[in-house]
Amino acid sequence: MAKAITTREENYSQWYNDIVKKAGLADHSAVRGCMVIKPLGFAIWENMKAQLDAMFKDTGHVNAYFPLFIPKSFLSKEADHVEGFAKECAVVTHHRLMNNPDGSGVVVDPSAKLEEELIVRPTSETIIWNTYKDWIQSYRDLPLLINQWANVVRWEMRTRPFLRTAEFLWQEGHTAHATREEAIEEAKLIHEVYARFAEDYMAMPVIKGAKSANERFAGAEETYTIEALMQDGKALQAGTSHFLGQNFAKAFDVKFLNENNQEEHVWATSWGVSTRLVGGLVMSHSDDDGLVIPPRLAPTQVVIVPIPKPLPEIMEKAEAIAAALKAKGVRVKIDKDAKKRPGFKFAQYELEGVPVRLGLGKRDLANGTIEVARRDTKEKVSIDIAGVDRYVEQLLHDIQSGLLQKAKDYRTEHTTEADNMDDFRGTLDEKGGFISAHWDGTAESELKIKEMTKATIRCIPNDFKEEKGSCILSGKPSKGRVLFAKAY
Amino acid sequence: MAKAITTREENYSQWYNDIVKKAGLADHSAVRGCMVIKPLGFAIWENMKAQLDAMFKDTGHVNAYFPLFIPKSFLSKEADHVEGFAKECAVVTHHRLMNNPDGSGVVVDPSAKLEEELIVRPTSETIIWNTYKDWIQSYRDLPLLINQWANVVRWEMRTRPFLRTAEFLWQEGHTAHATREEAIEEAKLIHEVYARFAEDYMAMPVIKGAKSANERFAGAEETYTIEALMQDGKALQAGTSHFLGQNFAKAFDVKFLNENNQEEHVWATSWGVSTRLVGGLVMSHSDDDGLVIPPRLAPTQVVIVPIPKPLPEIMEKAEAIAAALKAKGVRVKIDKDAKKRPGFKFAQYELEGVPVRLGLGKRDLANGTIEVARRDTKEKVSIDIAGVDRYVEQLLHDIQSGLLQKAKDYRTEHTTEADNMDDFRGTLDEKGGFISAHWDGTAESELKIKEMTKATIRCIPNDFKEEKGSCILSGKPSKGRVLFAKAY
Repeated sequence: MAKAITTREENYSQWYNDIVKKAGLADHSAVRGCMVIKPLGFAIWENMKAQLDAMFKDTGHVNAYFPLFIPKSFLSKEADHVEGFAKECAVVTHHRLMNNPDGSGVVVDPSAKLEEELIVRPTSETIIWNTYKDWIQSYRDLPLLINQWANVVRWEMRTRPFLRTAEFLWQEGHTAHATREEAIEEAKLIHEVYARFAEDYMAMPVIKGAKSANERFAGAEETYTIEALMQDGKALQAGTSHFLGQNFAKAFDVKFLNENNQEEHVWATSWGVSTRLVGGLVMSHSDDDGLVIPPRLAPTQVVIVPIPKPLPEIMEKAEAIAAALKAKGVRVKIDKDAKKRPGFKFAQYELEGVPVRLGLGKRDLANGTIEVARRDTKEKVSIDIAGVDRYVEQLLHDIQSGLLQKAKDYRTEHTTEADNMDDFRGTLDEKGGFISAHWDGTAESELKIKEMTKATIRCIPNDFKEEKGSCILSGKPSKGRVLFAKAY
Repeated sequence: MAKAITTREENYSQWYNDIVKKAGLADHSAVRGCMVIKPLGFAIWENMKAQLDAMFKDTGHVNAYFPLFIPKSFLSKEADHVEGFAKECAVVTHHRLMNNPDGSGVVVDPSAKLEEELIVRPTSETIIWNTYKDWIQSYRDLPLLINQWANVVRWEMRTRPFLRTAEFLWQEGHTAHATREEAIEEAKLIHEVYARFAEDYMAMPVIKGAKSANERFAGAEETYTIEALMQDGKALQAGTSHFLGQNFAKAFDVKFLNENNQEEHVWATSWGVSTRLVGGLVMSHSDDDGLVIPPRLAPTQVVIVPIPKPLPEIMEKAEAIAAALKAKGVRVKIDKDAKKRPGFKFAQYELEGVPVRLGLGKRDLANGTIEVARRDTKEKVSIDIAGVDRYVEQLLHDIQSGLLQKAKDYRTEHTTEADNMDDFRGTLDEKGGFISAHWDGTAESELKIKEMTKATIRCIPNDFKEEKGSCILSGKPSKGRVLFAKAY
């Protein structure tokens, strides 16, 4: 096994790429900017998806599926949206190939040009609101609470596996409401669901807040975001929920008759998280030896390794332990490979981030003990076999909460107040992280700070406190601190 | 509620479209040939997907995800494959839009032309085998048992919701093996999984068999198929599993070192089922009043309707019954809508195919009884509330097996032997269905019969019996009967 992961200290970016590649999360593909999600990476995404899907359904949402393609003209219908999305995208212009007359493979058939080009969806507001027009007539048809799991394409120039890829997988919720208040409530509800998912399942603490006007989704009146901090002190926007006002309803002429029989435009939200979360998971917890996966999302939570190999008497006990763990709902696997040595296996499971490893040898059997190794702290203890299922069940909880606490502590250490540009820059250079600073509320200052430091306003936090101060750039009055950081 | 479903007798094709539209399974979209899968249709697909996914995992497969796009040149690498798939497909030629200089929306940016066009995958053998080249070096890397859930696009000229759409959802398994025998065994295993799923979950009996050379997947050495019979006597190809030989390994140069340290090309299979199954489900069981969904795949298995409306004392009992059913794993819903009348609700649930409806009124409460109505036979009985959970649990089993039996009986009645072209044509015209007939084994006769009658060889059935006879067309010797039908 060629391990050799670059350390975080040496080169954080290369460390990330090494983990993704060597732990088998994803691979590059023959198509520029598109990755192959390998079985381990996809299994983590499947676990995320299952949990999020359950949370959406618990809050009254249903799934549906809309077309991959969007007629080009649709993108122009909402003025801000077209600026944001009708740029770098995949454009389908033809619907047929033909044999090259010179015999060298296939070429585009020029006679099969589409009357109107189709765009591979970068996001689906336009095609969905064009459909909602047919589905909504009366207040009785509202609210419409629909989510879609889909692939989308944005022709990114610089890509990184999971964090930014041309094609990515995501869910996009698109809801329709009778009132402004209800739509805002929906956008906030999902914001809350995302935050809960990030903390309770990914063990990734997030700051909840609203985007500045400049960083809003193209077509939104308000964008709520969850922002996480990675181990290199850079922020990751992990999920956004948008209040869209009546913008798309007006663009696609979606009206309803209210209870007083008056015609009104419908109010909208949209919200999404993507395979980017897998990147966030990796960067939140992993170390120089490989992946660290929080137990609640780990495809395999516990692996049992027979030492030195799967001898019948060891396997018998291993099967019994596995059965006891399965009965407690633990995802457990026994390594039955007789060819590889335990040391090799240990390194492999460490690399792949399996939260708990149980080592069971002949001497253990004789003593009635078993070795329990946890991936996060690398601690090993020998315990009585008798209570191993209860011990491991508790340990998985401990690891889950330990990872969250560790990430919270890191964030606390890396959140700094700055009261002038010198301090701001100094903090950015020395330790990075979130910087809480006064801002005058103008896009001008925001963009200037970005230009000077590469740091952006991550959010105006939900727990924003009224506090008089002066903008670190302009010195103009500010009503309170907002959160800056360099970001992925 | 505008019901008015065309009857099957009047116009089967229109009946199907009416069911799909009025029961809320799917809707047309603004993109030619692409449908919108509505929440009810998608929920059925989700149930199918969950079950199939579990069956794939139980047989050792894992999921992964490969790019949406395929470089054009890849399609030319396998000679048969290019003939089959590099025809009607969506071709991406540009990666950017720009504002139209005349101010009228956006146009394709001519400077953003791709060096090599990308094809939206019609199926993924080529991109996947191009990736497997990097993943397979030694026999230790085999077998590779990977499945993908994805959307694919084939630019169909004539489309019908679920049955044939330009974009559709499916799973595609792509496995790699060290030996021919193992690959054939894999293709047959999945063939068996598909048949089991169709019968046990969809209550849709299928004939298992192999395709004639002419009907094989482009690039396959053998295609195994499951063929179902719809209520209009036409066959539906419901799933196929292909033994691909070494064709793709050779096209993409995928070799491995065997245990004797010799280099060999890898053996392959691929297999898929799609949202077409939803169309098959509808056409297998539904009637002139709407959808009939087999309980095992029904998003809602039981609905409780309070009569005449959700009064507190009725709701209390309804909640208790729902809890008891949920405890048995039944997907149950209580209709709490106070505005709609019971009669309206009954018709709606009939249209949507909910297998069991429980009507609970004041008089029922007084008598300690409840009305149970089954969707399939429309029978209603009044039973003691006390045992309703056990009764309904059994009833769901009975409905599931009853639907399968009914479909089997229909198929038996509509499977006919024909020994000459007159009988063959007569049967096709009078009652349709499967026709078991002798064929001389040549593509020539097969195509001629298709040209004359529109019937195709659906399969050479697994239970093919050696039986001397004469081809119904050519009169030449035949070794046994194969199954013909007109097909979707």
